[in-house]
Amino acid sequence: MSDHAGRIRKSFARQAFMALLGARLARVETGEVDVELPFRSDLVQQHGFLHAGVTAAIADSACGYAALSVMPEDAAVLSVEFKVNLLAPAAGRRFVAQGRVVRSGRTITVVRGEVLAFDENDDARPVLAMQGTMMAIRGRGIAD
Amino acid sequence: MSDHAGRIRKSFARQAFMALLGARLARVETGEVDVELPFRSDLVQQHGFLHAGVTAAIADSACGYAALSVMPEDAAVLSVEFKVNLLAPAAGRRFVAQGRVVRSGRTITVVRGEVLAFDENDDARPVLAMQGTMMAIRGRGIAD
Amino acid sequence: MSDHAGRIRKSFARQAFMALLGARLARVETGEVDVELPFRSDLVQQHGFLHAGVTAAIADSACGYAALSVMPEDAAVLSVEFKVNLLAPAAGRRFVAQGRVVRSGRTITVVRGEVLAFDENDDARPVLAMQGTMMAIRGRGIAD
Amino acid sequence: MSDHAGRIRKSFARQAFMALLGARLARVETGEVDVELPFRSDLVQQHGFLHAGVTAAIADSACGYAALSVMPEDAAVLSVEFKVNLLAPAAGRRFVAQGRVVRSGRTITVVRGEVLAFDENDDARPVLAMQGTMMAIRGRGIAD
Repeated sequence: MSDHAGRIRKSFARQAFMALLGARLARVETGEVDVELPFRSDLVQQHGFLHAGVTAAIADSACGYAALSVMPEDAAVLSVEFKVNLLAPAAGRRFVAQGRVVRSGRTITVVRGEVLAFDENDDARPVLAMQGTMMAIRGRGIAD
Repeated sequence: MSDHAGRIRKSFARQAFMALLGARLARVETGEVDVELPFRSDLVQQHGFLHAGVTAAIADSACGYAALSVMPEDAAVLSVEFKVNLLAPAAGRRFVAQGRVVRSGRTITVVRGEVLAFDENDDARPVLAMQGTMMAIRGRGIAD
Repeated sequence: MSDHAGRIRKSFARQAFMALLGARLARVETGEVDVELPFRSDLVQQHGFLHAGVTAAIADSACGYAALSVMPEDAAVLSVEFKVNLLAPAAGRRFVAQGRVVRSGRTITVVRGEVLAFDENDDARPVLAMQGTMMAIRGRGIAD
Repeated sequence: MSDHAGRIRKSFARQAFMALLGARLARVETGEVDVELPFRSDLVQQHGFLHAGVTAAIADSACGYAALSVMPEDAAVLSVEFKVNLLAPAAGRRFVAQGRVVRSGRTITVVRGEVLAFDENDDARPVLAMQGTMMAIRGRGIAD
């Protein structure tokens, strides 16, 4: 896993969009990756809650890297599709997207994710549930 | 529709996250809203393509406002859920998310969206397909 | 809950399609409903595995009744949407769809489901993961 | 296409579940397959409408064969995932599921489908929208 963790941290560092959001890799284990994001007022939709695109983005990154953590060393990962249910308005001081591998195959890895919102007392509640498909890409010249 | 278009433009202007991305409302018609986004190098994932969270975000906004355009004047719109299929790497100079109403009900509006990527010759190809559910919220004090 | 269980059993008994499949309600708790289905050779797709429409159908019923179990007594339940990932070929002697409530709101209830396939040794493996949205319908003359 | 059409018709004939439902292949073109189903009272859910599992099943078959029609001759097709939005109660005398290829790749084919309900005057209205992913399987001994 140490090699995987190193690869995942390097790859995440190349996701310029995560840097723009202010998101960071909080946890990298085999099949489990967490991405953390502090609230920022330029990430909101029209009602002042975090935009669904933001919560979906950190969930997609967490799920993609969870999938990469169980793929062969020479593979890169691409999102095939994902679906999100928005469980509650994304209000909070910080957010943690938890990506988890449900089933891992040769080409296709199925993932589930949650985004938790933490309030000023650091109490958490779920605001997004994701279910998606990641694909291993090999030998096509796409760096991971 | 003129009233709807005005409300939608005001609401979009309050989506700070769209401003952060550099996205703008390109077209507002009844049941049809387009959001345009120029490429920017801080919006990418690890392979240099637009992050799936970015394309999903502009598709969600386009679909949400397409839904709002067919809702009663006093309603606000919330995303219940959406699903995206990523059709091709999101490479291009600019991107247009097209949100369309498939069916509109009293509470629930079903939407479909596409994101088109335009290359340096302004040739387009689809990079994302969305299918989702929007909900009308009324009388609960959420500004639209 | 006893009242809910009774209503759910009556409603399930009216689902003629569940009878056609040979499915039965195996468990009814608050927020948790299981539907069981023995394998039958007329339920298969072209490769001899259970058709995805069959596994999706029992998962939808399990999830729908899990949602109904947390709704007000006078509500009926409708499926708004669901998404399934097919995790493995649906081979087995019997199948159990487990519907679980993730979040329950006034109008919308978010659910997740799994279908487990049991082999001749009664060892289980997951073959389908569902994530969906159920809606409470009240006072519109639809019996539950 | 004639070869593809022949293979698709043979494969559909092996889907015992389609026979149980009373569904038939109505149209087979490159990238477009329609499946037709007459209403039958043993296919319903608790309110007397066609069960969502039934409409999803015919949409999945239509979409899967639409995908197979654009795959290499030696490939078989598997459903990876699909998502359905239920647009209206599935009331009608007959139903037509229209499967369409959105984008076809080497491994993954993205599809969209609709189910139309026809009433006693043969007027149609959409009752289901599907968006899903099909995968080409080659050389693993699964007959198509």
